[in-house]
Amino acid sequence: MLSVNKQDDTFLYRQVIDLISTNIDSGTLRPGDRLPSLRRMSQSARVSIPTVRQAYVELERQRRIESRPQSGFYVRPRAANDIVSAAPSSRGKPVCFNCRSLMERVYDGINNPRLVPLGIANPCMARPAAKTLHRAMKRVMARREESSLGYSSTLGEISLRRQIAYHYLDTVGAKIEPEHIAITNGGQEALLLSLRAVASPGDIIAVETPTYHGLLELIDSLGMLAVEVETCPEEGVTLSELRRTLEKHDVKACMFSTTLGNPLGVTMPEVTRRELVEILEEYDTVLIEDDVYGDLRFDGVRPVPAQFLKHSKRIITCGSFSKTAAPGYRIGWIVTEHFIDKIARLKRAFSCSSGLLQQLTLADFLASGDYARYLKALRPILKQNAERMSALVAEHFPAATRTSRPVGASVLWLELPAGVDSIQLFDDAITAGISIAPGQIFSPANRYRNCLRLSYGHPWTEQTENAIRWLGRQVAELC
Amino acid sequence: MLSVNKQDDTFLYRQVIDLISTNIDSGTLRPGDRLPSLRRMSQSARVSIPTVRQAYVELERQRRIESRPQSGFYVRPRAANDIVSAAPSSRGKPVCFNCRSLMERVYDGINNPRLVPLGIANPCMARPAAKTLHRAMKRVMARREESSLGYSSTLGEISLRRQIAYHYLDTVGAKIEPEHIAITNGGQEALLLSLRAVASPGDIIAVETPTYHGLLELIDSLGMLAVEVETCPEEGVTLSELRRTLEKHDVKACMFSTTLGNPLGVTMPEVTRRELVEILEEYDTVLIEDDVYGDLRFDGVRPVPAQFLKHSKRIITCGSFSKTAAPGYRIGWIVTEHFIDKIARLKRAFSCSSGLLQQLTLADFLASGDYARYLKALRPILKQNAERMSALVAEHFPAATRTSRPVGASVLWLELPAGVDSIQLFDDAITAGISIAPGQIFSPANRYRNCLRLSYGHPWTEQTENAIRWLGRQVAELC
Repeated sequence: MLSVNKQDDTFLYRQVIDLISTNIDSGTLRPGDRLPSLRRMSQSARVSIPTVRQAYVELERQRRIESRPQSGFYVRPRAANDIVSAAPSSRGKPVCFNCRSLMERVYDGINNPRLVPLGIANPCMARPAAKTLHRAMKRVMARREESSLGYSSTLGEISLRRQIAYHYLDTVGAKIEPEHIAITNGGQEALLLSLRAVASPGDIIAVETPTYHGLLELIDSLGMLAVEVETCPEEGVTLSELRRTLEKHDVKACMFSTTLGNPLGVTMPEVTRRELVEILEEYDTVLIEDDVYGDLRFDGVRPVPAQFLKHSKRIITCGSFSKTAAPGYRIGWIVTEHFIDKIARLKRAFSCSSGLLQQLTLADFLASGDYARYLKALRPILKQNAERMSALVAEHFPAATRTSRPVGASVLWLELPAGVDSIQLFDDAITAGISIAPGQIFSPANRYRNCLRLSYGHPWTEQTENAIRWLGRQVAELC
Repeated sequence: MLSVNKQDDTFLYRQVIDLISTNIDSGTLRPGDRLPSLRRMSQSARVSIPTVRQAYVELERQRRIESRPQSGFYVRPRAANDIVSAAPSSRGKPVCFNCRSLMERVYDGINNPRLVPLGIANPCMARPAAKTLHRAMKRVMARREESSLGYSSTLGEISLRRQIAYHYLDTVGAKIEPEHIAITNGGQEALLLSLRAVASPGDIIAVETPTYHGLLELIDSLGMLAVEVETCPEEGVTLSELRRTLEKHDVKACMFSTTLGNPLGVTMPEVTRRELVEILEEYDTVLIEDDVYGDLRFDGVRPVPAQFLKHSKRIITCGSFSKTAAPGYRIGWIVTEHFIDKIARLKRAFSCSSGLLQQLTLADFLASGDYARYLKALRPILKQNAERMSALVAEHFPAATRTSRPVGASVLWLELPAGVDSIQLFDDAITAGISIAPGQIFSPANRYRNCLRLSYGHPWTEQTENAIRWLGRQVAELC
């Protein structure tokens, strides 16, 4: 099956790489297949074991294969990098997001409690911390009595801001002053205030592609334009493309996710984050860093937000408890020293202040250690859900379907066979009692029509499994 | 003391009016003084009793005097109409609100819990419904368990929207579909979404003068311009002035309070509301109707919001529970049929949805009748606070001080003697441990520098009284 041209003795390991890549691309080696052991490969390809090892390590770095402890090397499931690297690069023109009527229908689906909820990114609802949070809230009501009904201050309760600062110190070693944190009505308002603080109507905003639809609706609703920057599932936004975009357009701000970006699930490596900060300086622009999924990597390792790596004044970091504790509390935050006064002014003008009871409850939840304990319990459940969903998709969707490979949070990104219309699928799914997120809403340029985002951020049930099976069959029919 | 020129026998009653008015203006008759009885006046002025009666009725209509059952007629306390009619009319030019650094200082005061809170309009904190609301919230947590942590829908919980619709039906007989109500993060976000739905940066917005500072900050933060329309404390915005403004400027929207406007406390009569709707039609503009104080008239009579009088599509009505139940819950609403889809889109883009637990708690609070009972208990406390504050101001402030005459809600508007700088007073008050609202923040054109808003929306204590006394002495010093 496998043979290497011994005549060309330089870079033999490269030939091993090409050989295996070709076999993966042609479908001879399929996702999940076990590669020959180092010894067997060495024998069959007639190269040394170290050469094979070098090749396997490089293939693993390229994320074509993966090692499993005590088991060997396996072909990785088709990853989203196939999807995105296949997209034509640098086609970005600033555009208005114009998916309004589709967004209405998607949200009708999301807001309908009778549908199987595969359409909404809602990680913490996989195992809600209801009892713990309810207890904390009752403690707050008992302790604060009448004063728990009053206004919070513009930037929010200092007790919660201290806990957020401490959480960053604890998880990534960043020292942040509570005075540089503003509490917001969820992550969405954090993005709104940040964007309005640095940009005006008509300005161009750089976004990843695909990117979170709420970002695109926000940019549109403020009369701004979005320009897409190609995004690689291993690295996040491609910095060479970003440079090209910044050369070409007067980009007022970038809005990127640095950890577990939605919908691809990408985490930007630290070295890339550092380079990104340099680019911001070089091109005199700012970054609104969406970090709402930062706490949700399955491995529990929290990457350092780009802002704190180099204490950049050009970065505003947005966080939220909507993904990690309680969506309905509507509590998010902004970290920025440089823009904090502007943010305060906007917060006051746009919504006065954020919910007091929820802030005090979350401050208690963090201070007691319950939040850390909760995350520890939540992550393996999300990981299990991700594995179950990936396995069912692999089993029931057409073979040409490609999927992302989640390492955290709660969504799976699918590229369906060319020609499958995910909006059609969305409509059919609603009729069948299932809500999903069609790919088109993740691009201001109406890309990803044959893509799809599925969420596993809810308790896993037979209904979930049946829904995925139904979707697989339906995609096959639409092929 | 009083005599009428009998030579001029036409309109004798007008001469009685002039006579009394002159005596009031000169200070011969002081606020609270009892007028001569009809009989005594008839004798001393040598006119018939019906002529005196006709004069008194007209003076009452002009709100110079008031009748008290079984007691006779009295000179009314100096009313805010003196203040506003004294302001030069029609000086309005569209302007940017530019009180930023002052607003920061005012909010630092408001946000400081150690100060006597005379600076913030917070009626329900005069007697917080903490126990009842806490009980309702605990019921919700028990009933909904895990699902009480999730996202609410974009437009909010249908149970609360139904209760709001029912509340309007119950109090003003208006039939509103719950589908035409959007739940927001307090009244401030209701104003934000409404304004953004009908106007864009650069647009001109007509406002009352003086008006709520949060409105001015909002207009400014969206890059719009405010134009002031003279406002009469008996009628609300002066419609003849409004017409002149609409002739002169391309006004994209009006933002007026129809009931208990802040800071003057004006309620627009129904006939004026109806005429206002006609003007909106005539000049093809829209009204954002701020109705957040609608439930708080001391007499419990709820005026019909202008939108419902004529089912006008040109009016968006904004309400809130921040003034009437729980500021910290951050729950307000918008009523509009015509703009509801646009509002939904903006709500999603700006803050996703509003707090779920608070919405469910308020729905329970309304459905149980607790809200109606609470308002009934709250109003007399506010009335008593208003009377106490008015009396103390009359006693301790310089005689030339003029004040509004609250008939609801929680604020008193003061015009200090000319030359007194309320910003200086504000700074001095902060040092003395008192927060107040200086007049200048209520005008985009920096008017009302010698005015002041004091709030009585908090439990009345000796501290409150001492604070008012201190302020009176300080004003005297600044004179």
